[in-house]
Amino acid sequence: MTIRRVAIIGLGLLGGSLSLALREKLPGIATTGYDRDPATRTRAAERGLVGTVYDTAGEAVSGCELVVLCVPVGAIGEAARDIADVLPSHAIVSDVGSSKRSVQKALAEALPSHTCVPAHPVAGTEQSGPDAGFATLFDGRWCILTPPDGAPQQAIDDLTALWQALGAKVEIMDAEHHDLVLAVTSHIPHLIAYTIVGTASDMEDVTRSEVIKYSAGGFRDFTRIAASDPVMWRDVFLNNRDAVLEMLGRFTEDLTALQRAIRSGDGETLHELFSRTRDIRRSIIDEGQDDASPDFGRDH
Amino acid sequence: MTIRRVAIIGLGLLGGSLSLALREKLPGIATTGYDRDPATRTRAAERGLVGTVYDTAGEAVSGCELVVLCVPVGAIGEAARDIADVLPSHAIVSDVGSSKRSVQKALAEALPSHTCVPAHPVAGTEQSGPDAGFATLFDGRWCILTPPDGAPQQAIDDLTALWQALGAKVEIMDAEHHDLVLAVTSHIPHLIAYTIVGTASDMEDVTRSEVIKYSAGGFRDFTRIAASDPVMWRDVFLNNRDAVLEMLGRFTEDLTALQRAIRSGDGETLHELFSRTRDIRRSIIDEGQDDASPDFGRDH
Repeated sequence: MTIRRVAIIGLGLLGGSLSLALREKLPGIATTGYDRDPATRTRAAERGLVGTVYDTAGEAVSGCELVVLCVPVGAIGEAARDIADVLPSHAIVSDVGSSKRSVQKALAEALPSHTCVPAHPVAGTEQSGPDAGFATLFDGRWCILTPPDGAPQQAIDDLTALWQALGAKVEIMDAEHHDLVLAVTSHIPHLIAYTIVGTASDMEDVTRSEVIKYSAGGFRDFTRIAASDPVMWRDVFLNNRDAVLEMLGRFTEDLTALQRAIRSGDGETLHELFSRTRDIRRSIIDEGQDDASPDFGRDH
Repeated sequence: MTIRRVAIIGLGLLGGSLSLALREKLPGIATTGYDRDPATRTRAAERGLVGTVYDTAGEAVSGCELVVLCVPVGAIGEAARDIADVLPSHAIVSDVGSSKRSVQKALAEALPSHTCVPAHPVAGTEQSGPDAGFATLFDGRWCILTPPDGAPQQAIDDLTALWQALGAKVEIMDAEHHDLVLAVTSHIPHLIAYTIVGTASDMEDVTRSEVIKYSAGGFRDFTRIAASDPVMWRDVFLNNRDAVLEMLGRFTEDLTALQRAIRSGDGETLHELFSRTRDIRRSIIDEGQDDASPDFGRDH
Protein backbone atom coordinates (compact mmCIF):
# COMPACT_ATOMS: atom_id res chain seq x y z
CA MET A 1 0.00 0.00 0.00
CA THR A 2 1.70 3.18 -1.22
CA ILE A 3 -1.17 5.52 -0.41
CA ARG A 4 -0.32 7.91 2.45
CA ARG A 5 -2.64 10.81 1.74
CA VAL A 6 -6.24 10.65 0.48
CA ALA A 7 -8.27 13.65 -0.68
CA ILE A 8 -12.03 13.34 -0.44
CA ILE A 9 -14.06 15.66 -2.64
CA GLY A 10 -17.67 15.81 -1.47
CA LEU A 11 -18.36 15.32 2.25
CA GLY A 12 -21.87 13.85 2.34
CA LEU A 13 -22.98 10.33 3.37
CA LEU A 14 -20.40 8.52 1.23
CA GLY A 15 -17.51 10.95 1.55
CA GLY A 16 -18.08 11.24 5.28
CA SER A 17 -18.30 7.48 5.77
CA LEU A 18 -15.15 6.95 3.74
CA SER A 19 -13.31 9.56 5.84
CA LEU A 20 -14.45 8.06 9.13
CA ALA A 21 -13.63 4.51 7.98
CA LEU A 22 -10.14 5.63 6.92
CA ARG A 23 -9.54 7.30 10.27
CA GLU A 24 -10.71 4.24 12.19
CA LYS A 25 -9.21 1.47 10.10
CA LEU A 26 -6.20 3.04 8.38
CA PRO A 27 -5.10 5.71 10.87
CA GLY A 28 -1.69 6.00 9.19
CA ILE A 29 -3.29 7.62 6.14
CA ALA A 30 -3.74 11.40 6.21
CA THR A 31 -7.05 12.72 4.88
CA THR A 32 -8.03 16.06 3.40
CA GLY A 33 -11.43 17.14 2.20
CA TYR A 34 -13.42 19.67 0.25
CA ASP A 35 -17.12 20.22 -0.44
CA ARG A 36 -18.47 22.92 -2.69
CA ASP A 37 -21.14 23.79 -0.09
CA PRO A 38 -19.58 26.07 2.59
CA ALA A 39 -22.08 24.88 5.23
CA THR A 40 -21.06 21.28 4.59
CA ARG A 41 -17.37 22.23 4.88
CA THR A 42 -18.04 23.91 8.22
CA ARG A 43 -19.99 20.94 9.56
CA ALA A 44 -17.41 18.46 8.26
CA ALA A 45 -14.67 20.38 10.07
CA GLU A 46 -16.74 20.44 13.27
CA ARG A 47 -17.26 16.67 13.10
CA GLY A 48 -13.60 16.16 12.21
CA LEU A 49 -14.56 14.05 9.20
CA VAL A 50 -11.12 14.57 7.62
CA GLY A 51 -7.77 15.78 8.92
CA THR A 52 -8.14 19.13 7.16
CA VAL A 53 -11.09 20.63 5.32
CA TYR A 54 -9.93 23.08 2.62
CA ASP A 55 -11.83 25.90 0.96
CA THR A 56 -10.81 24.81 -2.52
CA ALA A 57 -10.59 21.40 -4.15
CA GLY A 58 -7.13 22.31 -5.45
CA GLU A 59 -5.71 22.73 -1.96
CA ALA A 60 -7.37 19.51 -0.80
CA VAL A 61 -5.77 17.35 -3.52
CA SER A 62 -2.30 18.86 -3.15
CA GLY A 63 0.22 16.13 -2.28
CA CYS A 64 -2.29 13.26 -2.30
CA GLU A 65 -1.75 9.81 -3.83
CA LEU A 66 -5.48 9.15 -4.14
CA VAL A 67 -8.45 11.43 -4.69
CA VAL A 68 -11.96 10.04 -4.30
CA LEU A 69 -14.73 12.09 -5.85
CA CYS A 70 -17.79 11.58 -3.65
CA VAL A 71 -20.21 13.75 -5.59
CA PRO A 72 -23.40 12.96 -7.57
CA VAL A 73 -22.46 11.21 -10.84
CA GLY A 74 -23.69 14.21 -12.83
CA ALA A 75 -21.11 16.41 -11.10
CA ILE A 76 -18.11 14.09 -11.61
CA GLY A 77 -16.89 15.85 -14.79
CA GLU A 78 -16.95 19.27 -13.16
CA ALA A 79 -15.27 18.01 -9.98
CA ALA A 80 -12.53 16.39 -12.07
CA ARG A 81 -11.98 19.51 -14.20
CA ASP A 82 -11.76 21.51 -10.98
CA ILE A 83 -8.61 19.65 -9.90
CA ALA A 84 -7.11 18.85 -13.32
CA ASP A 85 -4.43 21.54 -13.22
CA VAL A 86 -3.15 20.91 -9.69
CA LEU A 87 -3.59 17.17 -9.20
CA PRO A 88 -0.24 15.40 -8.68
CA SER A 89 0.57 13.43 -11.82
CA HIS A 90 1.04 10.17 -9.91
CA ALA A 91 -2.29 10.44 -8.06
CA ILE A 92 -4.96 7.81 -8.63
CA VAL A 93 -8.46 9.19 -9.23
CA SER A 94 -11.48 7.24 -8.08
CA ASP A 95 -15.10 7.86 -7.06
CA VAL A 96 -18.07 6.18 -5.34
CA GLY A 97 -20.78 6.79 -7.95
CA SER A 98 -23.66 4.46 -8.80
CA SER A 99 -23.25 4.55 -12.59
CA LYS A 100 -19.88 3.67 -14.07
CA ARG A 101 -19.91 4.10 -17.85
CA SER A 102 -20.71 7.79 -17.53
CA VAL A 103 -18.11 8.26 -14.77
CA GLN A 104 -15.41 6.49 -16.77
CA LYS A 105 -16.12 8.73 -19.77
CA ALA A 106 -16.22 11.94 -17.71
CA LEU A 107 -12.94 11.12 -15.95
CA ALA A 108 -11.17 10.14 -19.18
CA GLU A 109 -12.20 13.45 -20.76
CA ALA A 110 -11.32 15.66 -17.78
CA LEU A 111 -8.14 13.88 -16.68
CA PRO A 112 -6.72 12.19 -19.80
CA SER A 113 -3.21 11.73 -18.40
CA HIS A 114 -4.13 10.47 -14.93
CA THR A 115 -4.81 6.94 -13.73
CA CYS A 116 -8.54 6.67 -13.14
CA VAL A 117 -10.09 3.63 -11.44
CA PRO A 118 -13.81 4.23 -10.87
CA ALA A 119 -15.34 2.44 -7.89
CA HIS A 120 -18.80 1.82 -6.46
CA PRO A 121 -19.21 0.68 -2.87
CA VAL A 122 -22.73 -0.81 -2.85
CA ALA A 123 -23.76 0.63 0.50
CA GLY A 124 -25.72 3.55 1.82
CA THR A 125 -28.69 4.71 3.81
CA GLU A 126 -31.58 7.03 2.97
CA GLN A 127 -29.82 9.88 4.77
CA SER A 128 -27.47 12.42 3.24
CA GLY A 129 -25.23 15.32 4.18
CA PRO A 130 -22.18 15.73 6.40
CA ASP A 131 -23.90 14.28 9.48
CA ALA A 132 -25.04 11.08 7.79
CA GLY A 133 -21.72 9.24 7.45
CA PHE A 134 -20.41 6.53 9.79
CA ALA A 135 -17.26 4.41 9.84
CA THR A 136 -18.87 0.98 9.46
CA LEU A 137 -21.00 1.70 6.39
CA PHE A 138 -18.84 -0.53 4.17
CA ASP A 139 -18.46 -3.51 6.54
CA GLY A 140 -19.29 -6.68 4.65
CA ARG A 141 -20.61 -4.77 1.62
CA TRP A 142 -19.26 -5.18 -1.91
CA CYS A 143 -17.20 -2.50 -3.62
CA ILE A 144 -17.09 -2.84 -7.41
CA LEU A 145 -14.07 -1.47 -9.27
CA THR A 146 -14.44 -0.78 -12.99
CA PRO A 147 -10.90 -0.05 -14.20
CA PRO A 148 -10.78 1.02 -17.86
CA ASP A 149 -8.68 -1.00 -20.34
CA GLY A 150 -5.02 -0.40 -19.70
CA ALA A 151 -5.37 0.82 -16.11
CA PRO A 152 -2.13 -0.02 -14.23
CA GLN A 153 -2.44 -3.16 -12.14
CA GLN A 154 -0.68 -1.45 -9.24
CA ALA A 155 -3.41 1.18 -8.98
CA ILE A 156 -6.11 -1.52 -9.07
CA ASP A 157 -4.28 -3.47 -6.37
CA ASP A 158 -3.82 -0.39 -4.18
CA LEU A 159 -7.47 0.54 -4.39
CA THR A 160 -8.54 -3.06 -3.76
CA ALA A 161 -6.35 -3.22 -0.65
CA LEU A 162 -7.72 0.07 0.60
CA TRP A 163 -11.38 -0.93 0.27
CA GLN A 164 -10.70 -4.31 1.83
CA ALA A 165 -9.01 -2.60 4.76
CA LEU A 166 -12.18 -0.54 5.19
CA GLY A 167 -14.22 -3.74 5.56
CA ALA A 168 -15.52 -4.13 2.02
CA LYS A 169 -15.30 -7.08 -0.34
CA VAL A 170 -13.97 -6.12 -3.77
CA GLU A 171 -15.07 -7.24 -7.22
CA ILE A 172 -13.65 -6.16 -10.58
CA MET A 173 -16.14 -5.69 -13.41
CA ASP A 174 -16.38 -3.79 -16.67
CA ALA A 175 -18.38 -0.57 -16.49
CA GLU A 176 -21.08 -1.75 -18.89
CA HIS A 177 -21.85 -4.89 -16.90
CA HIS A 178 -21.80 -2.90 -13.67
CA ASP A 179 -24.42 -0.55 -15.04
CA LEU A 180 -26.69 -3.44 -16.02
CA VAL A 181 -26.34 -5.27 -12.69
CA LEU A 182 -26.90 -2.15 -10.62
CA ALA A 183 -29.90 -1.16 -12.73
CA VAL A 184 -31.49 -4.35 -11.37
CA THR A 185 -30.27 -4.37 -7.78
CA SER A 186 -30.46 -0.65 -7.09
CA HIS A 187 -31.71 1.74 -9.76
CA ILE A 188 -35.02 0.07 -10.69
CA PRO A 189 -35.87 -0.57 -7.01
CA HIS A 190 -35.33 3.13 -6.31
CA LEU A 191 -37.35 4.20 -9.35
CA ILE A 192 -40.24 1.95 -8.35
CA ALA A 193 -40.15 3.13 -4.76
CA TYR A 194 -40.17 6.79 -5.80
CA THR A 195 -43.06 6.07 -8.19
CA ILE A 196 -45.34 4.24 -5.75
CA VAL A 197 -44.76 6.84 -3.04
CA GLY A 198 -45.63 9.53 -5.58
CA THR A 199 -48.73 7.64 -6.75
CA ALA A 200 -49.94 7.25 -3.17
CA SER A 201 -49.41 10.97 -2.47
CA ASP A 202 -51.42 12.07 -5.47
CA MET A 203 -54.66 10.18 -4.92
CA GLU A 204 -57.97 11.93 -4.47
CA ASP A 205 -60.00 9.03 -3.11
CA VAL A 206 -57.46 7.96 -0.47
CA THR A 207 -56.20 10.70 1.83
CA ARG A 208 -52.59 11.30 2.69
CA SER A 209 -53.48 10.68 6.32
CA GLU A 210 -54.81 7.22 5.42
CA VAL A 211 -51.69 6.41 3.43
CA ILE A 212 -49.59 7.25 6.49
CA LYS A 213 -51.77 5.48 9.06
CA TYR A 214 -51.94 2.19 7.19
CA SER A 215 -48.39 2.25 5.82
CA ALA A 216 -47.37 -0.71 8.00
CA GLY A 217 -49.10 -2.95 5.44
CA GLY A 218 -45.97 -2.76 3.27
CA PHE A 219 -45.90 0.79 1.91
CA ARG A 220 -43.62 2.14 4.63
CA ASP A 221 -40.78 -0.10 3.40
CA PHE A 222 -40.82 1.78 0.09
CA THR A 223 -40.75 5.19 1.72
CA ARG A 224 -37.29 4.53 3.11
CA ILE A 225 -35.51 4.38 -0.21
CA ALA A 226 -37.86 7.03 -1.62
CA ALA A 227 -36.36 9.35 1.02
CA SER A 228 -32.90 9.09 -0.58
CA ASP A 229 -31.03 12.11 -1.92
CA PRO A 230 -32.96 13.60 -4.89
CA VAL A 231 -29.95 15.04 -6.74
CA MET A 232 -27.92 11.87 -6.44
CA TRP A 233 -30.77 9.80 -7.83
CA ARG A 234 -31.75 12.22 -10.59
CA ASP A 235 -28.16 11.95 -11.80
CA VAL A 236 -28.16 8.14 -11.61
CA PHE A 237 -31.18 7.88 -13.91
CA LEU A 238 -29.84 10.46 -16.35
CA ASN A 239 -26.44 8.74 -16.43
CA ASN A 240 -27.51 5.10 -16.61
CA ARG A 241 -30.41 5.68 -18.96
CA ASP A 242 -29.97 2.75 -21.34
CA ALA A 243 -29.64 0.03 -18.71
CA VAL A 244 -32.45 1.51 -16.61
CA LEU A 245 -34.83 1.67 -19.58
CA GLU A 246 -33.90 -1.88 -20.61
CA MET A 247 -34.54 -3.28 -17.11
CA LEU A 248 -37.67 -1.19 -16.68
CA GLY A 249 -39.00 -2.77 -19.86
CA ARG A 250 -38.53 -6.25 -18.43
CA PHE A 251 -40.11 -5.28 -15.12
CA THR A 252 -43.12 -3.80 -16.92
CA GLU A 253 -43.58 -6.97 -18.97
CA ASP A 254 -43.57 -9.07 -15.82
CA LEU A 255 -45.97 -6.72 -14.08
CA THR A 256 -48.32 -6.85 -17.06
CA ALA A 257 -48.31 -10.65 -16.89
CA LEU A 258 -49.27 -10.54 -13.21
CA GLN A 259 -51.96 -7.96 -13.93
CA ARG A 260 -53.42 -10.35 -16.49
CA ALA A 261 -53.27 -13.21 -13.95
CA ILE A 262 -55.17 -11.12 -11.40
CA ARG A 263 -57.75 -10.02 -13.97
CA SER A 264 -58.41 -13.59 -15.09
CA GLY A 265 -58.36 -15.05 -11.58
CA ASP A 266 -55.31 -17.22 -12.36
CA GLY A 267 -54.26 -18.06 -8.80
CA GLU A 268 -51.75 -20.66 -9.90
CA THR A 269 -49.52 -18.14 -11.69
CA LEU A 270 -49.61 -15.86 -8.66
CA HIS A 271 -48.86 -18.66 -6.22
CA GLU A 272 -46.00 -19.99 -8.34
CA LEU A 273 -44.23 -16.61 -8.40
CA PHE A 274 -44.93 -15.81 -4.75
CA SER A 275 -43.38 -19.15 -3.72
CA ARG A 276 -40.28 -18.66 -5.84
CA THR A 277 -39.37 -15.23 -4.49
CA ARG A 278 -38.86 -16.48 -0.92
CA ASP A 279 -35.63 -18.24 -1.90
CA ILE A 280 -33.85 -15.05 -2.91
CA ARG A 281 -34.47 -13.48 0.49
CA ARG A 282 -33.01 -16.58 2.13
CA SER A 283 -29.89 -16.42 -0.08
CA ILE A 284 -29.39 -12.73 0.69
CA ILE A 285 -29.50 -13.48 4.41
CA ASP A 286 -27.25 -16.54 4.03
CA GLU A 287 -24.67 -14.41 2.21
CA GLY A 288 -24.69 -11.78 4.96
CA GLN A 289 -26.26 -9.04 2.84
CA ASP A 290 -29.27 -8.63 5.15
CA ASP A 291 -30.42 -9.54 8.63
CA ALA A 292 -32.63 -12.56 9.34
CA SER A 293 -34.73 -10.77 11.99
CA PRO A 294 -38.38 -10.48 10.95
CA ASP A 295 -39.49 -7.07 9.68
CA PHE A 296 -35.85 -5.87 9.38
CA GLY A 297 -35.57 -6.22 13.15
CA ARG A 298 -37.99 -3.33 13.69
CA ASP A 299 -38.86 -2.88 17.33
CA HIS A 300 -42.29 -4.43 17.97
CA MET B 1 -66.46 -5.96 27.79
CA THR B 2 -68.70 -9.04 27.74
CA ILE B 3 -66.25 -11.31 25.95
CA ARG B 4 -64.92 -14.08 28.21
CA ARG B 5 -63.95 -16.74 25.72
CA VAL B 6 -62.35 -16.24 22.28
CA ALA B 7 -61.93 -18.95 19.66
CA ILE B 8 -59.12 -18.47 17.18
CA ILE B 9 -59.40 -20.40 13.94
CA GLY B 10 -56.06 -20.51 12.13
CA LEU B 11 -52.89 -20.46 14.26
CA GLY B 12 -50.31 -18.82 11.98
CA LEU B 13 -48.61 -15.42 12.35
CA LEU B 14 -51.83 -13.48 12.94
CA GLY B 15 -53.75 -16.07 14.93
CA GLY B 16 -50.71 -16.81 17.05
CA SER B 17 -49.99 -13.13 17.70
CA LEU B 18 -53.62 -12.51 18.62
CA SER B 19 -53.53 -15.44 21.05
CA LEU B 20 -50.31 -14.32 22.69
CA ALA B 21 -51.50 -10.72 22.92
CA LEU B 22 -54.76 -11.86 24.55
CA ARG B 23 -52.87 -13.95 27.09
CA GLU B 24 -50.52 -11.11 27.95
CA LYS B 25 -52.91 -8.18 27.92
CA LEU B 26 -56.32 -9.67 28.69
CA PRO B 27 -55.45 -12.68 30.85
CA GLY B 28 -59.05 -12.92 32.09
CA ILE B 29 -60.20 -14.06 28.66
CA ALA B 30 -60.03 -17.80 27.92
CA THR B 31 -58.75 -18.78 24.48
CA THR B 32 -59.31 -21.86 22.35
CA GLY B 33 -57.86 -22.59 18.96
CA TYR B 34 -57.98 -24.75 15.87
CA ASP B 35 -55.94 -25.03 12.69
CA ARG B 36 -56.74 -27.36 9.84
CA ASP B 37 -53.08 -28.40 9.63
CA PRO B 38 -52.35 -31.08 12.29
CA ALA B 39 -48.66 -30.09 12.48
CA THR B 40 -49.65 -26.49 13.20
CA ARG B 41 -52.06 -27.68 15.93
CA THR B 42 -49.28 -29.70 17.54
CA ARG B 43 -46.82 -26.84 17.44
CA ALA B 44 -49.43 -24.35 18.69
CA ALA B 45 -50.14 -26.61 21.65
CA GLU B 46 -46.40 -26.95 22.38
CA ARG B 47 -45.96 -23.16 22.35
CA GLY B 48 -49.13 -22.76 24.42
CA LEU B 49 -50.50 -20.26 21.92
CA VAL B 50 -54.06 -20.74 23.22
CA GLY B 51 -55.52 -22.26 26.36
CA THR B 52 -56.71 -25.35 24.49
CA VAL B 53 -56.05 -26.47 20.93
CA TYR B 54 -58.90 -28.61 19.58
CA ASP B 55 -58.91 -31.11 16.73
CA THR B 56 -62.07 -29.65 15.21
CA ALA B 57 -63.21 -26.09 14.67
CA GLY B 58 -66.59 -27.00 16.13
CA GLU B 59 -65.10 -27.92 19.51
CA ALA B 60 -62.95 -24.80 19.49
CA VAL B 61 -65.89 -22.40 19.05
CA SER B 62 -68.13 -24.11 21.60
CA GLY B 63 -69.11 -21.65 24.34
CA CYS B 64 -67.24 -18.67 22.89
CA GLU B 65 -68.51 -15.10 22.63
CA LEU B 66 -66.11 -14.21 19.83
CA VAL B 67 -64.56 -16.24 17.05
CA VAL B 68 -61.75 -14.74 14.99
CA LEU B 69 -61.03 -16.42 11.68
CA CYS B 70 -57.29 -16.03 11.07
CA VAL B 71 -57.12 -17.82 7.72
CA PRO B 72 -56.27 -16.63 4.19
CA VAL B 73 -59.17 -14.55 2.82
CA GLY B 74 -59.91 -17.19 0.20
CA ALA B 75 -60.57 -19.73 2.96
CA ILE B 76 -62.91 -17.53 5.05
CA GLY B 77 -66.12 -18.93 3.54
CA GLU B 78 -65.09 -22.52 4.18
CA ALA B 79 -63.91 -21.74 7.73
CA ALA B 80 -67.24 -20.02 8.45
CA ARG B 81 -69.30 -22.89 6.99
CA ASP B 82 -67.28 -25.28 9.12
CA ILE B 83 -68.59 -23.73 12.34
CA ALA B 84 -72.04 -22.59 11.17
CA ASP B 85 -73.99 -25.41 12.84
CA VAL B 86 -72.31 -25.27 16.24
CA LEU B 87 -71.45 -21.61 16.73
CA PRO B 88 -73.32 -20.10 19.71
CA SER B 89 -76.04 -17.79 18.37
CA HIS B 90 -74.81 -14.82 20.41
CA ALA B 91 -71.17 -15.16 19.27
CA ILE B 92 -69.59 -12.34 17.27
CA VAL B 93 -67.66 -13.46 14.20
CA SER B 94 -64.63 -11.51 13.07
CA ASP B 95 -61.42 -12.07 11.11
CA VAL B 96 -58.03 -10.47 10.38
CA GLY B 97 -58.03 -10.60 6.56
CA SER B 98 -56.51 -8.05 4.21
CA SER B 99 -59.51 -7.68 1.87
CA LYS B 100 -62.86 -6.80 3.38
CA ARG B 101 -65.58 -6.76 0.70
CA SER B 102 -64.99 -10.41 -0.10
CA VAL B 103 -64.86 -11.34 3.59
CA GLN B 104 -68.07 -9.47 4.37
CA LYS B 105 -69.83 -11.30 1.53
CA ALA B 106 -68.47 -14.72 2.49
CA LEU B 107 -69.45 -14.30 6.14
CA ALA B 108 -72.94 -13.01 5.31
CA GLU B 109 -73.52 -16.04 3.10
CA ALA B 110 -72.14 -18.65 5.48
CA LEU B 111 -73.46 -17.19 8.74
CA PRO B 112 -76.58 -15.20 7.83
CA SER B 113 -78.01 -15.11 11.35
CA HIS B 114 -74.81 -14.24 13.23
CA THR B 115 -73.32 -10.86 14.01
CA CYS B 116 -70.26 -10.47 11.78
CA VAL B 117 -67.81 -7.59 12.21
CA PRO B 118 -64.84 -8.06 9.88
CA ALA B 119 -61.55 -6.58 11.04
CA HIS B 120 -58.09 -5.98 9.62
CA PRO B 121 -55.17 -5.27 11.93
CA VAL B 122 -52.62 -3.61 9.62
CA ALA B 123 -49.60 -5.39 11.01
CA GLY B 124 -47.44 -8.35 10.15
CA THR B 125 -44.01 -9.59 9.25
CA GLU B 126 -42.73 -11.63 6.32
CA GLN B 127 -42.80 -14.78 8.46
CA SER B 128 -45.68 -17.22 8.78
CA GLY B 129 -46.73 -20.33 10.66
CA PRO B 130 -47.28 -21.18 14.33
CA ASP B 131 -43.79 -20.04 15.40
CA ALA B 132 -44.05 -16.59 13.82
CA GLY B 133 -46.51 -14.90 16.18
CA PHE B 134 -45.59 -12.57 19.06
CA ALA B 135 -47.64 -10.64 21.62
CA THR B 136 -46.61 -7.12 20.63
CA LEU B 137 -47.36 -7.33 16.91
CA PHE B 138 -50.32 -4.96 17.20
CA ASP B 139 -48.75 -2.33 19.48
CA GLY B 140 -49.35 1.09 17.97
CA ARG B 141 -50.69 -0.34 14.70
CA TRP B 142 -54.13 0.42 13.29
CA CYS B 143 -56.94 -2.13 13.25
CA ILE B 144 -59.70 -1.32 10.77
CA LEU B 145 -63.21 -2.60 11.48
CA THR B 146 -65.66 -2.80 8.57
CA PRO B 147 -69.03 -3.55 10.18
CA PRO B 148 -71.79 -4.17 7.61
CA ASP B 149 -74.91 -1.96 7.67
CA GLY B 150 -77.03 -2.82 10.66
CA ALA B 151 -74.30 -4.46 12.73
CA PRO B 152 -75.17 -4.04 16.44
CA GLN B 153 -73.28 -1.16 18.05
CA GLN B 154 -72.54 -3.31 21.11
CA ALA B 155 -70.59 -5.80 18.99
CA ILE B 156 -68.61 -3.00 17.33
CA ASP B 157 -67.86 -1.48 20.75
CA ASP B 158 -66.79 -4.84 22.20
CA LEU B 159 -64.45 -5.55 19.32
CA THR B 160 -63.06 -2.01 19.45
CA ALA B 161 -62.35 -2.35 23.16
CA LEU B 162 -60.67 -5.71 22.63
CA TRP B 163 -58.31 -4.48 19.90
CA GLN B 164 -57.49 -1.35 21.88
CA ALA B 165 -56.66 -3.50 24.90
CA LEU B 166 -54.24 -5.43 22.67
CA GLY B 167 -52.39 -2.20 21.87
CA ALA B 168 -54.00 -1.30 18.54
CA LYS B 169 -55.68 1.91 17.46
CA VAL B 170 -59.10 1.31 15.91
CA GLU B 171 -60.74 2.93 12.89
CA ILE B 172 -64.19 2.18 11.45
CA MET B 173 -64.51 2.21 7.67
CA ASP B 174 -66.77 0.74 5.02
CA ALA B 175 -65.43 -2.36 3.32
CA GLU B 176 -65.20 -0.75 -0.10
CA HIS B 177 -63.07 2.14 1.08
CA HIS B 178 -60.90 -0.24 3.11
CA ASP B 179 -60.17 -2.26 -0.02
CA LEU B 180 -59.14 0.85 -1.95
CA VAL B 181 -56.91 2.22 0.83
CA LEU B 182 -55.20 -1.10 1.46
CA ALA B 183 -54.68 -1.65 -2.26
CA VAL B 184 -52.42 1.41 -2.08
CA THR B 185 -50.70 0.93 1.27
CA SER B 186 -50.28 -2.83 1.14
CA HIS B 187 -51.43 -4.81 -1.88
CA ILE B 188 -49.70 -2.87 -4.68
CA PRO B 189 -46.44 -2.64 -2.67
CA HIS B 190 -46.52 -6.42 -2.27
CA LEU B 191 -47.34 -7.00 -5.94
CA ILE B 192 -44.50 -4.73 -7.05
CA ALA B 193 -42.05 -6.37 -4.66
CA TYR B 194 -42.98 -9.86 -5.85
CA THR B 195 -42.63 -8.69 -9.46
CA ILE B 196 -39.20 -7.07 -9.18
CA VAL B 197 -37.81 -10.00 -7.23
CA GLY B 198 -39.17 -12.31 -9.93
CA THR B 199 -37.75 -10.13 -12.72
CA ALA B 200 -34.31 -10.12 -11.08
CA SER B 201 -34.38 -13.92 -10.70
CA ASP B 202 -35.19 -14.53 -14.34
CA MET B 203 -32.44 -12.55 -16.03
CA GLU B 204 -29.89 -14.15 -18.32
CA ASP B 205 -27.35 -11.35 -18.46
CA VAL B 206 -27.18 -10.75 -14.70
CA THR B 207 -26.56 -13.82 -12.55
CA ARG B 208 -28.49 -14.72 -9.43
CA SER B 209 -25.23 -14.50 -7.49
CA GLU B 210 -24.77 -10.90 -8.65
CA VAL B 211 -28.33 -10.01 -7.67
CA ILE B 212 -27.66 -11.34 -4.18
CA LYS B 213 -24.20 -9.78 -3.75
CA TYR B 214 -25.23 -6.29 -4.76
CA SER B 215 -28.69 -6.37 -3.17
CA ALA B 216 -27.70 -3.76 -0.56
CA GLY B 217 -28.21 -1.13 -3.28
CA GLY B 218 -31.95 -1.23 -2.56
CA PHE B 219 -33.15 -4.57 -3.90
CA ARG B 220 -32.87 -6.38 -0.56
CA ASP B 221 -35.60 -4.15 0.91
CA PHE B 222 -38.06 -5.58 -1.64
CA THR B 223 -37.11 -9.18 -0.89
CA ARG B 224 -38.51 -8.88 2.62
CA ILE B 225 -42.11 -8.42 1.63
CA ALA B 226 -41.62 -10.75 -1.34
CA ALA B 227 -40.90 -13.46 1.26
CA SER B 228 -44.43 -13.18 2.67
CA ASP B 229 -46.86 -16.09 2.71
CA PRO B 230 -47.71 -17.10 -0.90
CA VAL B 231 -51.21 -18.45 -0.19
CA MET B 232 -52.26 -15.46 1.85
CA TRP B 233 -51.13 -13.08 -0.88
CA ARG B 234 -52.55 -15.08 -3.78
CA ASP B 235 -55.91 -14.85 -2.01
CA VAL B 236 -55.57 -11.10 -1.42
CA PHE B 237 -55.09 -10.40 -5.12
CA LEU B 238 -57.91 -12.72 -6.17
CA ASN B 239 -60.25 -11.18 -3.57
CA ASN B 240 -59.44 -7.50 -4.02
CA ARG B 241 -59.13 -7.62 -7.77
CA ASP B 242 -60.99 -4.45 -8.72
CA ALA B 243 -59.19 -2.10 -6.34
CA VAL B 244 -55.80 -3.67 -7.09
CA LEU B 245 -56.27 -3.34 -10.86
CA GLU B 246 -57.47 0.25 -10.46
CA MET B 247 -54.46 1.23 -8.34
CA LEU B 248 -52.08 -0.72 -10.54
CA GLY B 249 -53.34 1.32 -13.48
CA ARG B 250 -52.47 4.55 -11.72
CA PHE B 251 -49.04 3.26 -10.69
CA THR B 252 -48.30 2.18 -14.26
CA GLU B 253 -49.29 5.59 -15.61
CA ASP B 254 -46.93 7.29 -13.18
CA LEU B 255 -44.13 4.86 -13.99
CA THR B 256 -44.61 5.49 -17.71
CA ALA B 257 -44.31 9.24 -17.12
CA LEU B 258 -41.01 8.72 -15.28
CA GLN B 259 -39.80 6.39 -18.02
CA ARG B 260 -40.48 9.16 -20.54
CA ALA B 261 -38.63 11.68 -18.33
CA ILE B 262 -35.58 9.39 -18.19
CA ARG B 263 -35.67 8.75 -21.93
CA SER B 264 -35.84 12.46 -22.74
CA GLY B 265 -33.29 13.49 -20.11
CA ASP B 266 -35.84 15.55 -18.18
CA GLY B 267 -33.99 15.89 -14.88
CA GLU B 268 -36.40 18.47 -13.52
CA THR B 269 -39.37 16.07 -13.47
CA LEU B 270 -37.25 13.44 -11.73
CA HIS B 271 -35.88 15.87 -9.16
CA GLU B 272 -39.32 17.30 -8.42
CA LEU B 273 -40.79 13.86 -7.62
CA PHE B 274 -37.71 12.66 -5.70
CA SER B 275 -37.88 15.74 -3.47
CA ARG B 276 -41.59 15.37 -2.77
CA THR B 277 -41.44 11.76 -1.62
CA ARG B 278 -39.17 12.53 1.34
CA ASP B 279 -42.02 14.21 3.21
CA ILE B 280 -44.16 11.09 3.40
CA ARG B 281 -41.37 9.16 5.09
CA ARG B 282 -41.05 11.93 7.66
CA SER B 283 -44.81 11.90 8.35
CA ILE B 284 -44.82 8.10 8.78
CA ILE B 285 -42.04 8.40 11.35
CA ASP B 286 -43.72 11.36 13.07
CA GLU B 287 -46.94 9.34 13.39
CA GLY B 288 -45.09 6.41 14.96
CA GLN B 289 -45.65 4.03 12.03
CA ASP B 290 -41.92 3.49 11.42
CA ASP B 291 -38.60 4.02 13.11
CA ALA B 292 -36.40 7.04 12.39
CA SER B 293 -33.14 5.05 12.49
CA PRO B 294 -31.35 5.09 9.12
CA ASP B 295 -31.65 1.92 7.03
CA PHE B 296 -34.47 0.57 9.28
CA GLY B 297 -31.95 0.45 12.12
CA ARG B 298 -30.04 -2.36 10.39
CA ASP B 299 -26.86 -3.21 12.22
CA HIS B 300 -23.92 -1.58 10.40
